[in-house]
Amino acid sequence: MAGLKGETPPTGGVEATPAVELGEAPVLTTEEFEQARQIFFDRCAGCHGVLRNGATGPALTPDKTLPKGTLALASIIFNGTPRGMPDWGKQGVLTAEQAELMAKYIQNEPPAPPEMSMEQMRGFWKVLVAPEDRPTEPQHTRNWENFFAVTLRDAGQVAVIDGDTYEVVATVNTGYAVHISRMSATGRYVYTIGRDGKTALIDLWMDPPAVVAEVKTCYDARSVEVSKYNGPEGDFTDRYAIVGCYWPPHFVIVDGLTLEPLKVVSTRSYTYDTQEYHPEPRVASIVASHFSPKWVVNVKETGQIWLVDYTDVQNPAIKMLNAERFLHDGGWDASGRYFLVAANNANKIVVLDVQEEKVAAIVETEKIPHPGRGANWIDPVFGPVWSTSHLGEGALVAIGTDPVNHPEYAWKVVRTIPLPGAGSLFLKTHPNSDWIWVDHTLNPDEEIQRTVCVIAKANPVEPYKCWQVADYGRAVHFEYNMEGNQVWVSVWGRADDPGRTGEIVVYDDKTLEEIARIPNLVTPTGKFNVYNTVKDIY
Amino acid sequence: MAGLKGETPPTGGVEATPAVELGEAPVLTTEEFEQARQIFFDRCAGCHGVLRNGATGPALTPDKTLPKGTLALASIIFNGTPRGMPDWGKQGVLTAEQAELMAKYIQNEPPAPPEMSMEQMRGFWKVLVAPEDRPTEPQHTRNWENFFAVTLRDAGQVAVIDGDTYEVVATVNTGYAVHISRMSATGRYVYTIGRDGKTALIDLWMDPPAVVAEVKTCYDARSVEVSKYNGPEGDFTDRYAIVGCYWPPHFVIVDGLTLEPLKVVSTRSYTYDTQEYHPEPRVASIVASHFSPKWVVNVKETGQIWLVDYTDVQNPAIKMLNAERFLHDGGWDASGRYFLVAANNANKIVVLDVQEEKVAAIVETEKIPHPGRGANWIDPVFGPVWSTSHLGEGALVAIGTDPVNHPEYAWKVVRTIPLPGAGSLFLKTHPNSDWIWVDHTLNPDEEIQRTVCVIAKANPVEPYKCWQVADYGRAVHFEYNMEGNQVWVSVWGRADDPGRTGEIVVYDDKTLEEIARIPNLVTPTGKFNVYNTVKDIY
Repeated sequence: MAGLKGETPPTGGVEATPAVELGEAPVLTTEEFEQARQIFFDRCAGCHGVLRNGATGPALTPDKTLPKGTLALASIIFNGTPRGMPDWGKQGVLTAEQAELMAKYIQNEPPAPPEMSMEQMRGFWKVLVAPEDRPTEPQHTRNWENFFAVTLRDAGQVAVIDGDTYEVVATVNTGYAVHISRMSATGRYVYTIGRDGKTALIDLWMDPPAVVAEVKTCYDARSVEVSKYNGPEGDFTDRYAIVGCYWPPHFVIVDGLTLEPLKVVSTRSYTYDTQEYHPEPRVASIVASHFSPKWVVNVKETGQIWLVDYTDVQNPAIKMLNAERFLHDGGWDASGRYFLVAANNANKIVVLDVQEEKVAAIVETEKIPHPGRGANWIDPVFGPVWSTSHLGEGALVAIGTDPVNHPEYAWKVVRTIPLPGAGSLFLKTHPNSDWIWVDHTLNPDEEIQRTVCVIAKANPVEPYKCWQVADYGRAVHFEYNMEGNQVWVSVWGRADDPGRTGEIVVYDDKTLEEIARIPNLVTPTGKFNVYNTVKDIY
Repeated sequence: MAGLKGETPPTGGVEATPAVELGEAPVLTTEEFEQARQIFFDRCAGCHGVLRNGATGPALTPDKTLPKGTLALASIIFNGTPRGMPDWGKQGVLTAEQAELMAKYIQNEPPAPPEMSMEQMRGFWKVLVAPEDRPTEPQHTRNWENFFAVTLRDAGQVAVIDGDTYEVVATVNTGYAVHISRMSATGRYVYTIGRDGKTALIDLWMDPPAVVAEVKTCYDARSVEVSKYNGPEGDFTDRYAIVGCYWPPHFVIVDGLTLEPLKVVSTRSYTYDTQEYHPEPRVASIVASHFSPKWVVNVKETGQIWLVDYTDVQNPAIKMLNAERFLHDGGWDASGRYFLVAANNANKIVVLDVQEEKVAAIVETEKIPHPGRGANWIDPVFGPVWSTSHLGEGALVAIGTDPVNHPEYAWKVVRTIPLPGAGSLFLKTHPNSDWIWVDHTLNPDEEIQRTVCVIAKANPVEPYKCWQVADYGRAVHFEYNMEGNQVWVSVWGRADDPGRTGEIVVYDDKTLEEIARIPNLVTPTGKFNVYNTVKDIY
């Protein structure tokens, strides 16, 4: 694998590959280097990796970047590429000077990122309200199971919003750019994970709901999940949480009520296919089985799915399944037996059978599937399906998920439904709904960015209706209320654009009529309804 | 952990510890550096680690070595220390110039050792005689189950010696400094593992026995084991082998009949206690359970015992048990339910219960236990015990191993038997024997180096008899013949000392009389009787 560390001659008598003759990297001042490193972390590391070995984006090690040179690299950074590189300059995120700086930076060797020990994690750990000091029953009369935890991305906050009244009940400080929220198995607690690796625990029974504990177990993270199993092997509801890190590449099991870090397990290992050592296998999505005391941990770069038994957290048992590279996001089928996860840059969906603990199928989809957790519905022709939209293609696909009653459609793409454009991040439905909702958040066209579509389950061959949800920003992410009769859509504005920082639009799911706006939210993105998140309804 | 990589400032906003102000490291020429690197690999890496983070020996990173300076370091390297550093100069292994070179070398940053990919391993892999071309029955009339595989350490060879006639039946080229040999579950095949990471497969049915396959899966290795399980979950006899590597820190599952490398799993993870990332957790001993399709893989630096299920080698399930740091060598108790392994630098023996898949006990012993596989016998007072001698103390301890009938003695040191000196590497007994045999190979005293002792099981309070087995070299390692009525002892000479390169002395185990010498072997060390090794009789 190009650019991995450790290419000096071995001790055991094997010749190393001679280094390619390359020019000198542009010299940066210490200040420039620090600025570039921060920008790389914020904007680039997600796709290219902290060590720049590539993942969703290509490798950016000096052997790749030096031959291109500063001018060509700066142009790509500023203008983007048709293959998926964002146009950071045109979007106004980076100046021309910053694009040039980044072009110079990536011709230098990536700086070695730091490790994080248990001692450091414990240093970050704070219990703000001890479990024994927390209420024993809800301190308010609100319908907390219909609360929504809403990521206010650029504010580093989460808003807790009442799904009955649309009131913002609390706005709490969390990690930066919270990627997802997950609820404890009882629903009482919300766990948020920030891009900066900080986990916050919010107690919804307090009045107002408040952060009762926090910890930082990574420098860069994307996922958190809880223990959900309650059965013969024990009651693990609200017992543990697990944090999946991008850097360091590991996962950390923490106490469910205090976030005390308990156990760290590295994901550094070998790619599933070529069996090369990878120094940065990042933990993407994690889900908890409802039927066994296990987490499904998706390791992106090595392409392995790890089934982590949490009955004995200090001595975990891990089944390491070969799957496909670039595992990212995914969700359960309606039965909860199968977990469908995007191997995004491989244009595939991997189907994990958690009962048999094996990969049941790998399904080819369109370009760069990005399901979020996907959407389960009953197709009039093909029976139960799970569906995803795509970042690289204006298409929503449905995959048969019922090997018992519809074996001929199981793990096959049974429908490919055209959308107005590519760049979709999310789709969503609910068992009570007639519709599948889909966004186009990262489409380069401003109008399409703001457009959502609904597809009728009764006639799922094309969108039934598409419309712009606002005259600014981007429409992103859907969530149903507890009853499944209203849909919330985020309008993702800009934190520095007063009046247009963002809002949530609430629709009646039956009529598709707008029924409310929750205004003046700072860059709202993901929204997680307590009841639906606990029950994995999507 | 001092000296680990990755101490540059993090990307996520955490301040790094400022580097200690140190002098400049001595400059070496490229030739000197290469020579020093090879000497370090041959003589130093075993205890200090390739990355010099320390294990059995202390860390040797520049923050530790620069303050000491060249003169003091060279003196330690030449003269040794009372704490266990060998006197390489006095022993004649290194010249004064080489000691000074090494003193300079270790003040420089350790060079990054290379990774090894599956592609490289497959490049090293050779099948010399395909399984279908091998004999279907033994091609000679010798009693091959009483063959001994004898490591000829400095020759890079293994001698196959007939235990009935003492004839050298074959001398085959293997890896360098073969650390151990293991037999396939049927006994037909011998697997050797060299210090250089090379595994050779010897077919004992051929006439003469010959190497039929070889592979290299590491640059530095110590352990190999086979799959032994035959039961409801399948017949895995002679199906797989597993190679445990020191560098890269991983294990590799290979085909049992061809050595085709199949699966690589990294051991890089977190120390069991402080949960710090360790870049070099080396695989020490590996044993196969007779009762489940699992290997016990001892990971030295992280102090974890991994139970590796081999029923699905591409998707292995691994139970990761916290144990103790510096796991090294060990063996089964007589029942095969418990595996006792030395945490050598922690002066402890860890007792693994493979049936319950948990650590049953951790027993304090004397300084640096080095059991090899240990010795099981019935103590007249305490019942079944397993015993070990020590590198750092002239003492043999016996640990009770029978929690059912002798629960008061289980996992306790019930006897500490004094020996003439420290430096013991091995002890051995056999169920048919009245004795426990023990060596003192690494004792600094030349006479004690050559001395073996026997302890009477009937009166295990002190050695019954001690004697020198030769007038040169060191006495090392014991093995019984198949019947358990003869004991073989190696005399470990010097490859460059004609007539005194080494030999094996065979004793009648009943009378303790010498009955044969197998002369002119080049540095014989470990000897593995086919039958006893298959059955784990020790």
